[in-house]
Amino acid sequence: MYKNINSTDIDFFIQTCGKSCVSTNDDDLLYYSKDHTEDLSYLPQVVVKPANVEQVSAILSYCHQHIIPVTPRGAGTGLSGGALPVCGGVLLSMEKFNTIIEIDERNLQATVEPGVINQVFQEAVAAKGLFYPPDPASRGSCFLGGNIAHCSGGPRAVKYGVTRDYVLNLQVVLPNGNIIWTGANTLKNSTGYSLTHLMIGSEGTLGVVTKIVFKLIPLPATNVLMLIPFKQADKACEAVAAIFKHGIVPSALEFMERDAIDWTLRYNPDIVLNIADDIQAHLLVELDGNNPDILMDQAQKVSEVVSQYNCADILFADTEAQKNDLWRIRRKVAEAVKSNSVYKEEDTVVMRAELPKLLKGVKSIGNKYGFQSVCYGHAGDGNLHVNIIKGNMSDNDWNNTVTLGIKEIFELCVSLGGTISGEHGIGLVQKNYLSIAQSQVQINLQKGIKELFDPHHILNPGKIFN
Amino acid sequence: MYKNINSTDIDFFIQTCGKSCVSTNDDDLLYYSKDHTEDLSYLPQVVVKPANVEQVSAILSYCHQHIIPVTPRGAGTGLSGGALPVCGGVLLSMEKFNTIIEIDERNLQATVEPGVINQVFQEAVAAKGLFYPPDPASRGSCFLGGNIAHCSGGPRAVKYGVTRDYVLNLQVVLPNGNIIWTGANTLKNSTGYSLTHLMIGSEGTLGVVTKIVFKLIPLPATNVLMLIPFKQADKACEAVAAIFKHGIVPSALEFMERDAIDWTLRYNPDIVLNIADDIQAHLLVELDGNNPDILMDQAQKVSEVVSQYNCADILFADTEAQKNDLWRIRRKVAEAVKSNSVYKEEDTVVMRAELPKLLKGVKSIGNKYGFQSVCYGHAGDGNLHVNIIKGNMSDNDWNNTVTLGIKEIFELCVSLGGTISGEHGIGLVQKNYLSIAQSQVQINLQKGIKELFDPHHILNPGKIFN
Repeated sequence: MYKNINSTDIDFFIQTCGKSCVSTNDDDLLYYSKDHTEDLSYLPQVVVKPANVEQVSAILSYCHQHIIPVTPRGAGTGLSGGALPVCGGVLLSMEKFNTIIEIDERNLQATVEPGVINQVFQEAVAAKGLFYPPDPASRGSCFLGGNIAHCSGGPRAVKYGVTRDYVLNLQVVLPNGNIIWTGANTLKNSTGYSLTHLMIGSEGTLGVVTKIVFKLIPLPATNVLMLIPFKQADKACEAVAAIFKHGIVPSALEFMERDAIDWTLRYNPDIVLNIADDIQAHLLVELDGNNPDILMDQAQKVSEVVSQYNCADILFADTEAQKNDLWRIRRKVAEAVKSNSVYKEEDTVVMRAELPKLLKGVKSIGNKYGFQSVCYGHAGDGNLHVNIIKGNMSDNDWNNTVTLGIKEIFELCVSLGGTISGEHGIGLVQKNYLSIAQSQVQINLQKGIKELFDPHHILNPGKIFN
Repeated sequence: MYKNINSTDIDFFIQTCGKSCVSTNDDDLLYYSKDHTEDLSYLPQVVVKPANVEQVSAILSYCHQHIIPVTPRGAGTGLSGGALPVCGGVLLSMEKFNTIIEIDERNLQATVEPGVINQVFQEAVAAKGLFYPPDPASRGSCFLGGNIAHCSGGPRAVKYGVTRDYVLNLQVVLPNGNIIWTGANTLKNSTGYSLTHLMIGSEGTLGVVTKIVFKLIPLPATNVLMLIPFKQADKACEAVAAIFKHGIVPSALEFMERDAIDWTLRYNPDIVLNIADDIQAHLLVELDGNNPDILMDQAQKVSEVVSQYNCADILFADTEAQKNDLWRIRRKVAEAVKSNSVYKEEDTVVMRAELPKLLKGVKSIGNKYGFQSVCYGHAGDGNLHVNIIKGNMSDNDWNNTVTLGIKEIFELCVSLGGTISGEHGIGLVQKNYLSIAQSQVQINLQKGIKELFDPHHILNPGKIFN
C-alpha cells in the first residue's frame, strides 16, 4: 500500500532540509527504530530532521502525494510505542525544534517549539517566577511535543491538571502539508469545535505540532514533602481518597509499592533510605503554596488522616537535597525496573477511591497468569502504573499468556469506571486492548476523523486503532 | 431539503414520549422560538420534551432517517442564538433531564443530567463542602447541558477554568440515534482522540448530551470581595495584568464600565451604591481560600497594585448581603441593558494585557459607525462583553452599518491574538464572522467532522459554519 522510499525521495528530503538533516545510516536507523517501550524495534527507511514549519509542510505534502508513511518523533521516551515507525518510511525527528520562542510575563503565557525538553522549559519559566506544572517522570529528556501527543500528566496533575489544561493554541502541519493554528492565544475560546483539544492526545496521527502556546501560572513559593510508610499496601491506597475527603489537595500524591522502592534503591546506591521490614508501600505527599505555616497545618492534617490507615513514622524531607532524593526514587522506578528486566508498562487509571480494588485485582491477576508486577504511580489521580516483569518468562508466555492477564487488568479498570491509559497513550502496544474501553461506534468515529485529516493514512500509521 | 413534519411524525413523537411531552400549540411554538439573543424568533414545527436517553435516541434515529431538523435546547439563555430552530422542525427541549443523579464524595465527582440548573447544582455540591466553579451570569436559570454546548465560563474561570475543565465524561446520543459514552470517569484519560473535548463547545451540532460526569474540588472556606473604582477605564484594564504579574490569582476579576453599573442600578433600585461623578470604571475583585489572614494580605497587595493605576477609594464588602449586592450588579448588567433597548452582545476575548487596546478600539469603532456600547466582563481572562445598543437606530443601520462595526471589532480581537467568542459560542449570530478568526482549512475540517457525525445535517442546522 505504501510507496517504498527510493533515491528520488531521499534527494527531495535533502533538497528540503539539507544533507546533514537526512540520514539513511544504519546506526541512525537503528537508534530511531526504538523508543522506551519494552525492547521493540522497527527500522525506518530514512531519518529526516526538519528545522522549521515550512520544511515539515514540504515533507508532509510530498509524502501525502506519494503515499509514504511518516512517523513523527519527540525524544522517544514514550512507553506505548507511539514513536515507533512500524511501517518504515520517514522517521520525522522534531529534535531541531528546540527553541523557547517567548515567555510572556505580562500574559503569563509562553510560545515554544515542540522539541524543547520539559524540564528545560519548566526551569526557564521558574526563573521568571512562573510555573508549568505537567512533568512526566521523563521530564529531564522528554519533549513538550510528545507531552502533547499523549496528553502527559506527571505527579503535579493531581492539583494542577495535565498537559491539556495548559495548551492554549497549536500550530500544526496537517498530513497534506497545510499549516493551521488550532485556536487563539486566549484563556477562553468558544469559537467552533476545539481542534486544539482534538489534537492533544492524538499521538501524532492527525498532524505534526510545530509551535505551542502554553498558559502559565505563578510559581508557588514553597512546599513540604512527606514520605509515609504503610504496613499494608491496600491501606495506603485507601488513605488516598481520605486525604481529599478532608479537603486537602496535595500538589503530588504518589504511591509506591515496596518493590518499586527496593529496586530503585538498588539501582541508585547513592540514595540512602532505611525501610523497616514490615513496610509494604509508601505514599509520597507534596503540599505546595506560598505560606509555610499553612503548609505545616495541612501536613499535620495529612498526618492525622493517614494515621488511621496503619502507617508507620512519617519522614519529612528537611532539605532540598532530601526532597531531591525522594523525588529521584519516585522518578527512577521505571528505569530501575528496566535495568533488571524487559517489562511492559500498563498505565491503568480508575476513580481514585477504587484504587485499593485495582491494586488487589492486579496482584490476583498476576498470580493467576504467573507474572510479577511492580506497581506505583499517581495515586491521587487514580493512575497506577503496573510494570509487568519478564524476568525468566518464556517468550511464548510473555507474548501470549501475559497478554491475557493484561486484558483482564484492563477489563477490571473499565468495570471500576476507569480506562486503559491515563497518560501514556495507546500507541502501538495497547491498541489491541482499545475495544475493552471503547465501543465500536466510538472507535469508528475516531477512524472517521483520522480519514478526514489523513485520507492516505501517511501519518503515524499502525497506532491507536489502525 | 428537509422533510416537513406531518401528522405521522407527530404521532411517532407522541408514541415515543407521551402526549404531554409533544406540543404544536401556538403559544408553545412561540415560546420556544426565542432564546436570549437580541429579539430573534424562529418557529419550530413541534416541541418535544423527552425524559430519558432512549427517547432521545428514538427521536434522533427517526429524524435522521426522515431528514427532519432537530434543534436541542437547554434553558434558552444563550446569547449567540444556539438554541434557535432556524430551520423549523423539532425543538428538542431537554428540560425534563433535571436530575442530579449522584454526588460522589469519595471521588469528588458528580453525575448529572443536562437539564439541571447551574446554580441548583452548585448549591447541591456546596452543601457537601464541594465546589463546581463555572457559573455564567445566567446561573440561576441556565442548564449545565447548555454550559457544555458553549463551554461556558463565568467569573470564577480566571482562577478555576471553564466548563471544559470540569467535564470528565459525557453520555451522548449521536444524530443517528447511537448512544455513546465519550470517555471514562477518571481525572486523566489518554485513550484515543478526546471525543469528550470535541463535544464540549460543539453547540449541539454533533450530538445531544444526556448525562454528564463532572469533577469537583473542595469548596474554599471564605472569600474577600473588593470593588475598586477607577477614574480612567483604560487604567482599570491596565491594572488587571498588573495584579497577576504580582503573583496573585483572584477567584474573580471583573471589569465594568461606568454605564454598566449606572444602567444596572437604575434597573435594580433596591441596590444602593454611591459612585463619584469622576469614576469611569470599576474592577470587582474576589479572592478566595481557606485562611482569612492570607486573603487580607492578598487584598492589601491588590490595593497596592491598583493604587498605581489612579484608583479611588476601594469598597470592601463587609457582609454577605453586601457581597450579594455587588455580585447582583455584575450579574444583572445584561438584563439591565436589555430592559433599555434591543442589543447585540459580542463576546470578545484577547490576551489579558491587551485589554486596554481592545476597550479603546471598541469605543473608537463605535464612534466611527455611530453606535453606543456598554462594556464589562471577565477582565482577568481578557474576555470583554461588548453590548451594542440599538436605541433609536434605524433597522437598516442596525442590520448593516453595525455589522461592519462588529466585523472591525472582531478583526481587532484577532490582530491582538484573540478571537471572536470567549464563552458564548458562535451559534447563529456570529457565524458570518467566523472567517475573521479561522482559516478556510480550519473551517473545512470542522465541516468534515460535522459531516462524519451528522451526514444528513439534522442536528442544530444553520449554526457555527453551516
